[in-house]
Amino acid sequence: MIALSSPTVSHRPLRVAIAGATGAVGAEFLRLLDDRNWPVASLKLLASARSAGKTLRFRGEDLPVEELTDANLRGHDLALFSCGSERSVRFADSARRGGAVVIDNSSAFRMDADVPLVVPEINPEAALAHKGVLAVPNCTTIVFLMAAGPLHREARIRRAVVSSYQAASGAGATALAEYDAQVRAAAAERPLERTVFPRILHGNVIPQVDVFLDDGSTKEERKLDRETRKILGDDGVRCAATCVRVPVRRAHSVSMALEFERPVSAARAREVLSAAPGVVVVDAHGSADYPTPLDASGRLEVLVGRIREDPSREGGLLLWSVGDQLLKGAAWNAVQTAELLIERGLL
Amino acid sequence: MIALSSPTVSHRPLRVAIAGATGAVGAEFLRLLDDRNWPVASLKLLASARSAGKTLRFRGEDLPVEELTDANLRGHDLALFSCGSERSVRFADSARRGGAVVIDNSSAFRMDADVPLVVPEINPEAALAHKGVLAVPNCTTIVFLMAAGPLHREARIRRAVVSSYQAASGAGATALAEYDAQVRAAAAERPLERTVFPRILHGNVIPQVDVFLDDGSTKEERKLDRETRKILGDDGVRCAATCVRVPVRRAHSVSMALEFERPVSAARAREVLSAAPGVVVVDAHGSADYPTPLDASGRLEVLVGRIREDPSREGGLLLWSVGDQLLKGAAWNAVQTAELLIERGLL
Repeated sequence: MIALSSPTVSHRPLRVAIAGATGAVGAEFLRLLDDRNWPVASLKLLASARSAGKTLRFRGEDLPVEELTDANLRGHDLALFSCGSERSVRFADSARRGGAVVIDNSSAFRMDADVPLVVPEINPEAALAHKGVLAVPNCTTIVFLMAAGPLHREARIRRAVVSSYQAASGAGATALAEYDAQVRAAAAERPLERTVFPRILHGNVIPQVDVFLDDGSTKEERKLDRETRKILGDDGVRCAATCVRVPVRRAHSVSMALEFERPVSAARAREVLSAAPGVVVVDAHGSADYPTPLDASGRLEVLVGRIREDPSREGGLLLWSVGDQLLKGAAWNAVQTAELLIERGLL
Repeated sequence: MIALSSPTVSHRPLRVAIAGATGAVGAEFLRLLDDRNWPVASLKLLASARSAGKTLRFRGEDLPVEELTDANLRGHDLALFSCGSERSVRFADSARRGGAVVIDNSSAFRMDADVPLVVPEINPEAALAHKGVLAVPNCTTIVFLMAAGPLHREARIRRAVVSSYQAASGAGATALAEYDAQVRAAAAERPLERTVFPRILHGNVIPQVDVFLDDGSTKEERKLDRETRKILGDDGVRCAATCVRVPVRRAHSVSMALEFERPVSAARAREVLSAAPGVVVVDAHGSADYPTPLDASGRLEVLVGRIREDPSREGGLLLWSVGDQLLKGAAWNAVQTAELLIERGLL
């Protein structure tokens, strides 16, 4: 399913720990390390006590899953974390003090001044100042910025209005299983059940991702606004996000209206994005060529289409970007960040 | 399924023709006339030659479906059209010359200067000047304007950025059947098939509704912009729309960012919308109360929630509205328009 370029880095074999190995992102970490032919000296798979004792397959071997503990986090070069904010807060420092560079997929440290928040195609320089912990941005923020970031460099975004179409697997493996069960129940005309999502997801859309905050926005919506400013290194960017869960298994889509300091034409935006690393422009102007979540699923790149001038604002643009949130929105962005550090001799 | 208020008009029995009686909207016309206890002197059900000979049930009787022809359109008081633009262009004038007031659900006449484009809660006065043909706006435009219209009266909208989440049945009964078949195929792990939608819809979202135009927008997106200006009677409103099909059976959702001439607070917007006819505010600020398509399906009202101040623009608002596009977005808006004319003695 994953179309990978051949590995771009060769390096000394690394001792790698994965915290959250049994989750949806954990599975992608394993697949990526294998597909990219990472020289791995040792691989420690960690998860909650509940999952300890399971095995996961890596390069033809069944590796045991062990409990995420301080002791198990000692003695690694790299720790890839994707086990939720609470566990990141509890365990990331153990891993760091135990010798590892931590790349964390949760929101725990993203806004910490000491923690680089990195999209390697957008702000690779941020990674170089790391102090042992780096953060992967929110998945929707990444899918948004892979399109918006290159255009920001071109003409400085001042405001973005963003509506998302987020896949079930963004809420984790259990959530995806709940959606799949709902599809089977619907086909069999049985009642649909839910415990993970706040509403039935099959045949519905849910304008809530993550919890609500005091100002009426959700945490997901606020993340997109704040993380964008940190990643772009520009306090003048403002984002209005509405984040919506949709009945899609994999790959988030983002509809965006961008307002710039300097006007950008659709033709120029197509040029800029066609040259942007990690972006594939799927956009036959005026015809039915555009990316959908099914096209982006399993791909490392973010697909961008529906590029057009905003009829409601001179010099503004409308775009549609789609990316596999488990890959570019999480595991791949983390592995890319590690490869960037290796390349620069920082890992 | 439909929760109806009791009929508000009593009137002389009308001779009614329905053009497109076998379609998704046609079924809602029949249900509404029955549920609202319309005094119907005669009811002529018309459709393509292919459907002629079928019967449809109305008030316990099986009524024959006849072919849509000039002759069959003679001698009615009211003709409800929902059979696509081409047939509207071909047949609406026959119905009008045959004695009927035509209420047309297609896009054929919406922008004609002589044809009122009516959302009864928003611009009822427009209906009064009719010359025999009235148009029902695009379904997404209606769901958008039921929320945006009352706020426009309050503070004058200058710009709206809109992203839609449109249901399968908006593309018609055959399209809905295609989506349903895809759900069954997915549950059985059989390959999904499509002929109606431009991409697989189950487990996907499709950023195309209607055909593409020269400027890279779709016809659906342009309709929302142009129809909004006509309905609000204000040439200064500009809309940037991105219209997206989602795997939902029924009810369109709209995420909108509104910019006003005068600032509006979220609290004031809640007051205005709570008092707006045909709108139900579902919005417990800062908690998980909001409308979804499953909540709006089968309802005549448009549900509005996620009302909050736009963090990216002083005085602006973000909102989420959801409406059953077969009812308020089509059949119910048409029947309401007819009831308005009856009430004013114009039918």
